[in-house]
Amino acid sequence: MVIATYRFPSGVDAGRQAEIIAIGQTLGSADARFAGREQALAACRGQVLEVRADGDGARAQVAFPAANTEYDIGTLLTMVFGKYSLAGPARLVDLRLPPDFGTRPRFGIAGLRARLGVAGRPLLMAIFKPALGLTAADHATLLRAVADTELDLVKDDEILGNLAQAPTRERLRACRPVIEAIRDRRGRDFLYAVNVTGRADTLLATARALVAEGANALLLNVLVYGYPMLEALARDPAIGVPIIAHPALAGALALAPDHGIDYALVLGRLMRHAGADVVLHPARFGSLPFSAADESRVITALTDSDDHWPAVFPGPSAGIKPAIVPALLADYGRDLVINAGSAIFDAATGPKAAVESFFAAMDA
Amino acid sequence: MVIATYRFPSGVDAGRQAEIIAIGQTLGSADARFAGREQALAACRGQVLEVRADGDGARAQVAFPAANTEYDIGTLLTMVFGKYSLAGPARLVDLRLPPDFGTRPRFGIAGLRARLGVAGRPLLMAIFKPALGLTAADHATLLRAVADTELDLVKDDEILGNLAQAPTRERLRACRPVIEAIRDRRGRDFLYAVNVTGRADTLLATARALVAEGANALLLNVLVYGYPMLEALARDPAIGVPIIAHPALAGALALAPDHGIDYALVLGRLMRHAGADVVLHPARFGSLPFSAADESRVITALTDSDDHWPAVFPGPSAGIKPAIVPALLADYGRDLVINAGSAIFDAATGPKAAVESFFAAMDA
Repeated sequence: MVIATYRFPSGVDAGRQAEIIAIGQTLGSADARFAGREQALAACRGQVLEVRADGDGARAQVAFPAANTEYDIGTLLTMVFGKYSLAGPARLVDLRLPPDFGTRPRFGIAGLRARLGVAGRPLLMAIFKPALGLTAADHATLLRAVADTELDLVKDDEILGNLAQAPTRERLRACRPVIEAIRDRRGRDFLYAVNVTGRADTLLATARALVAEGANALLLNVLVYGYPMLEALARDPAIGVPIIAHPALAGALALAPDHGIDYALVLGRLMRHAGADVVLHPARFGSLPFSAADESRVITALTDSDDHWPAVFPGPSAGIKPAIVPALLADYGRDLVINAGSAIFDAATGPKAAVESFFAAMDA
Repeated sequence: MVIATYRFPSGVDAGRQAEIIAIGQTLGSADARFAGREQALAACRGQVLEVRADGDGARAQVAFPAANTEYDIGTLLTMVFGKYSLAGPARLVDLRLPPDFGTRPRFGIAGLRARLGVAGRPLLMAIFKPALGLTAADHATLLRAVADTELDLVKDDEILGNLAQAPTRERLRACRPVIEAIRDRRGRDFLYAVNVTGRADTLLATARALVAEGANALLLNVLVYGYPMLEALARDPAIGVPIIAHPALAGALALAPDHGIDYALVLGRLMRHAGADVVLHPARFGSLPFSAADESRVITALTDSDDHWPAVFPGPSAGIKPAIVPALLADYGRDLVINAGSAIFDAATGPKAAVESFFAAMDA
């Protein structure tokens, strides 16, 4: 069974809507007259489990047969909120999935820690800045400025695609010698999450080619390219590197209060079950509006042991500064990827001192 | 240039937000201090073109260099609304694209009319019902019930994936002899839009295999699998069949009034520029809440000649009955695909009489 929970604002007849979902998202017709098919139809039909008041609105749980899906996130989303998303104010707020639903992260928290040889502290990731306007050689120069630190990962900005000013493959080629020098010096790896873009066919081919050329991590704008693309990357034996999920476009699905899909699913459970190893998300003390409740629910969805699935790294992002780090650690412990953009590569002190400030904040 | 228009609700400083978009969605830092790079940065930077009042809110136009994208819908969406979608109440309401941006529909209205040999009237499409619970043989039986009519297309329900009860390839194999019989009888083609699903890698492989086995049209849940997947299907030389875009999940992006992306983009311009040949969408007299304004703007975005791009078929859907048809034709003319589910395969009169009722309504 897939159990989906919907929240309806005040004024909506939640019981009636739950019935519309249970039938409309399975058999398709609420008044179907298909004599002789009762048994086959009953096996596919959704069931309303519960409808209850929730503040000034209501919430309802609907159970769907998992066999109505392909055990992947694509058919899951179509089933639980596809056509119904167009039906009026309703928000998909929770999903409980049966065992083995989706794509396991290849690394997760445990695997990524082992890969990087880091235990007992958060990982630190930098973002190349400015996002656009640099050449491939500029990327390598920026990276050299932090080569003497314990920085764990660097990533492209999500808006930097395969552009003439700095083609993706050239960025990788320019940075590889610096990455190798870092690894040689400190005896543990350093990951560069290369932003992989393109139409669905070229994106997959590009990802395989980048890995063949030495890319040791990938960044994907999952909401732009689709969870099915994340699942494909995470399963591909020719890829096999950690995948960092970027939240670009997530607000278009999750920010409105009475519509769309909750952040805890969009950036939480769905990402974890689609194979992401690190999921970037706003932080409540950062530069984007993100409530403590949203932050906590996203991080819980990525890491909780109620979900029998490998835990994956939350990556608090956007306006992250050293001063924010102690509060993050106090609330969530050490299984975080602290993801800093301007606070490292646009820091007044220079990137190296900025990285050291982040490590000092982790120790404090 | 890509010109994006955003609408902000009352209480938002639209001028300030437009500047945040122009810099944050290009260079990434509003206070970047990158001496010596002024020229390279200026070439990438967005520009606020206009900010003006709009009802109780405001709207702003921002121009982005098209060279910041890969001339595809994926990098376009990341640029115009990726990170910014998380930044607070704002709605992406319009996009103007430079020439040759995206993927041309292979057929469009003109090509699909030629393929089907139909001029001077709307096309009529049926949806197999019930959505789930039928075997592949049942699909063929349903199709035989309309084999003596002038029905133009049939499609799977969007929630019917590659399921054990009726695997996609078996549905196609069961229906092919009926399709061939229809074609032989009337001397013009009949299309069956097979729902193509899966992780990104398997979806592409499945689509190619289905076409190799005789699939003559495909249905894609574009918002679930991503516009980049639609672009890949529309360009693939091994596919080459009409693609029907389904709006599943579109409401999660478009239904909230002050957030997300307008229906005229989600189901209109973005679909047209990603290569769809037919775009299914709610109709104002159907079973989903859809305003006359939304309906008109979606249909205009798919067909207007201001956009120098092949026009593609609007496909009014969901609760479509013969009684609705005259109003649709009066408002929008004949370039429509009338898409009926329960009103054909769950009609009290039987499917054949139901198809004839639709044609009678078109003639009236």
